Amino acid sequence: MKKPLINFASVAAIVLGVTSWTPPGLASEMLSSWNDTAPKKAIVAFVERVTKQGSPDFVPPAERIATFDNDGTLWAEQPLYFQFLFAIDRIKALAPQHPEWQHKEPFTSLLKGDPKAALAGGEQALIDIVTATHAGMTSDEFGGMVKDWIATAKHPATGRPLTEMTYQPMLELLTYLRANEFKTFIVSGGGIEFMRAFAEKVYGVPPEQVIGSTGKQQFEMRDGKPVLVKLDTVDFIDDKEGKPIAIQRIIGRRPIAAFGNSDGDLPMLQWTCGTSGLRFCLYVHHTDAEREWAYDRSSSIGRLDKGLDQAKTAGWTVVDMKGDWKTIFMSQR
Amino acid sequence: MKKPLINFASVAAIVLGVTSWTPPGLASEMLSSWNDTAPKKAIVAFVERVTKQGSPDFVPPAERIATFDNDGTLWAEQPLYFQFLFAIDRIKALAPQHPEWQHKEPFTSLLKGDPKAALAGGEQALIDIVTATHAGMTSDEFGGMVKDWIATAKHPATGRPLTEMTYQPMLELLTYLRANEFKTFIVSGGGIEFMRAFAEKVYGVPPEQVIGSTGKQQFEMRDGKPVLVKLDTVDFIDDKEGKPIAIQRIIGRRPIAAFGNSDGDLPMLQWTCGTSGLRFCLYVHHTDAEREWAYDRSSSIGRLDKGLDQAKTAGWTVVDMKGDWKTIFMSQR
Repeated sequence: MKKPLINFASVAAIVLGVTSWTPPGLASEMLSSWNDTAPKKAIVAFVERVTKQGSPDFVPPAERIATFDNDGTLWAEQPLYFQFLFAIDRIKALAPQHPEWQHKEPFTSLLKGDPKAALAGGEQALIDIVTATHAGMTSDEFGGMVKDWIATAKHPATGRPLTEMTYQPMLELLTYLRANEFKTFIVSGGGIEFMRAFAEKVYGVPPEQVIGSTGKQQFEMRDGKPVLVKLDTVDFIDDKEGKPIAIQRIIGRRPIAAFGNSDGDLPMLQWTCGTSGLRFCLYVHHTDAEREWAYDRSSSIGRLDKGLDQAKTAGWTVVDMKGDWKTIFMSQR
Repeated sequence: MKKPLINFASVAAIVLGVTSWTPPGLASEMLSSWNDTAPKKAIVAFVERVTKQGSPDFVPPAERIATFDNDGTLWAEQPLYFQFLFAIDRIKALAPQHPEWQHKEPFTSLLKGDPKAALAGGEQALIDIVTATHAGMTSDEFGGMVKDWIATAKHPATGRPLTEMTYQPMLELLTYLRANEFKTFIVSGGGIEFMRAFAEKVYGVPPEQVIGSTGKQQFEMRDGKPVLVKLDTVDFIDDKEGKPIAIQRIIGRRPIAAFGNSDGDLPMLQWTCGTSGLRFCLYVHHTDAEREWAYDRSSSIGRLDKGLDQAKTAGWTVVDMKGDWKTIFMSQR
């Protein structure tokens, strides 16, 4: 989080008696990890138009909703979704209490160190793993466990802390939008309570602005105290058509800007940009095999195929990570 | 909405360089429809303690979450929930297209002008009515319809606009809490899209801070444009144990203050106050048969029975509407 910049811009705006104003040159300073190529120009042009009082494209601050996918958009998702790394570590820790996992997929493959084979079971395998490792705990216990885990978890390929596998240009973009009185939401297929454990610290996005997949919960009294217990039933998968549905249910306003990287984000981008009024839709295209990973149409993780075609047809912005980003991962603080 | 007061306090706080501060005497001015009895004193004492920097009870602004029930807490709910009045009007308008309703409860009784008989079918009757009148439309169409309806709908007993059947002391309380950097949420059994159609204008609560019951929706393309269509299936009932579950799922933080008026709010109040740290729970007790209605333990609408006992045991604040409120309904603007 680049807190000082947020506060500077907000306070400056208030002192000057205007509700939306970015000091000249500040946009460039705030988006310093972006090359001066088309995507950065498009972002700045959009923000200037919707924040300019009296402009036909002006949008009042309350309606400046921007939604961001998480995996592959705000942080990396290769070689496996990071929440899956958490689940693997949990499975290993829980295995002694579950001898049956030795002969039951997807657990057998996972314990053998073969996550690809475990995932051959598709979405059901993923759900089995997540419920087996998340259910039975209270929300508070689960949140604490994720916080503890993510404080030390390292990326299997780079060895960096997972929270530093976040994209510096996107962190700057979040800050820049908030300085322009946007309300930034995460709308991701990831588990909602998993993401909330770090979203505020890492992205500056408070829990109530994190939307994700959910499991059923139960309210009960334990030792005379109320608790919420996670059950082993999936409640809602916040992916594909689920994204606009969750946006409507939880935010209740249509975003004016949306950011994603895969076909799973396509309905969210369609919902955002498929209406009248100035809107902004952006795809992050993973094109940098050297600094990150290069994948799109045929990837099993973060497939970007229909979305790439749609972006072309609709004139959405596509970030070429290799050419448009000076830096990929979070700069050391 | 008392916008000037909000802005005055916020700007004053910023100019003075403090993040939480209510000018001396402002609390009394902002809560002017409250008598100087125990509830008002308890509210002010709580707010002063949690907002005082350096106090052991200090709570950072981001964690100052306050949740409010709607029916019977922010506006009246007698002789029938107001959303039910909307549904009756819709049933009458739709009846010509549904000849079968002449012989099918709960519709028959409704069309005969006997809502009490229609409601004899309990929660299922209510669900049948709501789905029959809400389904098939897009979210946008539905929101527009509620806005049109509520602009002219009058209360059957008082003849006042429904939006003026809101409680003036509670409107002041919402404003007072926001001036003290609380984030105010509505958490109600009412339909989420019904409430959002007026919550921002009437309560100053934006759509993303309204939590309610939901129906399933479907994302689809109509004439090449994406729409969300309301289906005839209930998704989630935001009442009783549903309230803490929805709070956790959508807000992701435990409130530090909660306000309700019925047993349906009890789990929300337990969840809020059943933990360590300074918390505030309040029940509005309908005790004023002259200026409003008097009902509690045996009412079918807004029953307050277990909650009243629990409030006594736990030391929660109970508002005696007759003795504690100078004014009941919204003051004319």
